[in-house]
Amino acid sequence: MKIAIALFEQVTALDAVGPYEVLQRLPDAEVLFVGHQRGEIRTDNGFLGLTIDHEFEDVPSPEVLLIPGGIGTRALVHDGTILNWIREAHQTSRFTTSVCTGSLLLGAAGILKGLKATTHFAARPLLEKYGAEPSNQRVVQQGKVITAAGVSSGIDMALRLAELLTDPTTAKALQLMIEYDPQPPHDAGALEKVDPAVLRRAQELSRDKH
Amino acid sequence: MKIAIALFEQVTALDAVGPYEVLQRLPDAEVLFVGHQRGEIRTDNGFLGLTIDHEFEDVPSPEVLLIPGGIGTRALVHDGTILNWIREAHQTSRFTTSVCTGSLLLGAAGILKGLKATTHFAARPLLEKYGAEPSNQRVVQQGKVITAAGVSSGIDMALRLAELLTDPTTAKALQLMIEYDPQPPHDAGALEKVDPAVLRRAQELSRDKH
Repeated sequence: MKIAIALFEQVTALDAVGPYEVLQRLPDAEVLFVGHQRGEIRTDNGFLGLTIDHEFEDVPSPEVLLIPGGIGTRALVHDGTILNWIREAHQTSRFTTSVCTGSLLLGAAGILKGLKATTHFAARPLLEKYGAEPSNQRVVQQGKVITAAGVSSGIDMALRLAELLTDPTTAKALQLMIEYDPQPPHDAGALEKVDPAVLRRAQELSRDKH
Repeated sequence: MKIAIALFEQVTALDAVGPYEVLQRLPDAEVLFVGHQRGEIRTDNGFLGLTIDHEFEDVPSPEVLLIPGGIGTRALVHDGTILNWIREAHQTSRFTTSVCTGSLLLGAAGILKGLKATTHFAARPLLEKYGAEPSNQRVVQQGKVITAAGVSSGIDMALRLAELLTDPTTAKALQLMIEYDPQPPHDAGALEKVDPAVLRRAQELSRDKH
């Protein structure tokens, strides 16, 4: 089963690698990292290089496509190459998925019209521009289109997707293999859960980085 | 603040990228991916390429060192280059950390003698060989040595570490930025939580891959 994960300059690494770590363990998975051209791209702040192994045109009809987010998506919502690939791959995919601001690319490709969808909390209002109905759920499934919220939510999305592709025992086994038994020190992972000082600090940290 | 994350052939990507995604957002973080030689390495099953930017000897005294796991660690417990680097960097580090079977390398470097430590559940008994006391906690801190359990636990570890390096508001802001509000579809992320059929399936899937 071909699972294509898009990579591009200024991708958020965990958006891609979280789901990858679940899906690569499916018994018949062939995970393909695809992009504009083969070679290295750098993550949003440049600290990590990841390799594109396949050009978009070489993987026209994966069973699963997954679009991660990152500030790189801001330019890509106007990029015909990736939008055409998404549109065409979506015609034959079993599942078309995104993590974080990857959903803006699904939107720009015209796939989210009339659908509920999610993205990073800071980008949620932008979904409306593509005719989508923003949701504050962590993972939103609409038929074969599944969108996930910010960054780490791709792990939860991939576990659901794994179950849709296999069975509950296999999905639980994948969760066990990556020991996904989350115990964050605080309950601060959603906008609705933090006080204004935490949001202000997050905004400061985002400005520092970009 | 220099944060060195080791990379090597057959690393488990999420072990490195989970903590990276938290730590790179610290206001003064400089994350350096280090290894035997600059260039690409491939993850445990070969599906993803990650880039080593710095050789071990070029980053002798990072404030934080982080050793991820993966089947590549099986050979590295006998590799003088990485073990010497770990040992020497540990002399001056503020924190020496591992995720998953990365703790076996801390053990082989002699750092875990007499300490409680953790690793992937399947490797837990191996810690005893290095004089460590295996723990089934998700994150184990012993002074400046922090070990985390399997794969995804590195995210929880990094959030604790971020708080030790800064303050609770910043740690919560980092958690918000990556929207770490876990909602796995099942509660199957720890050995103690699954029935025998799930463990058997995990063992089958591990055999298929390696």
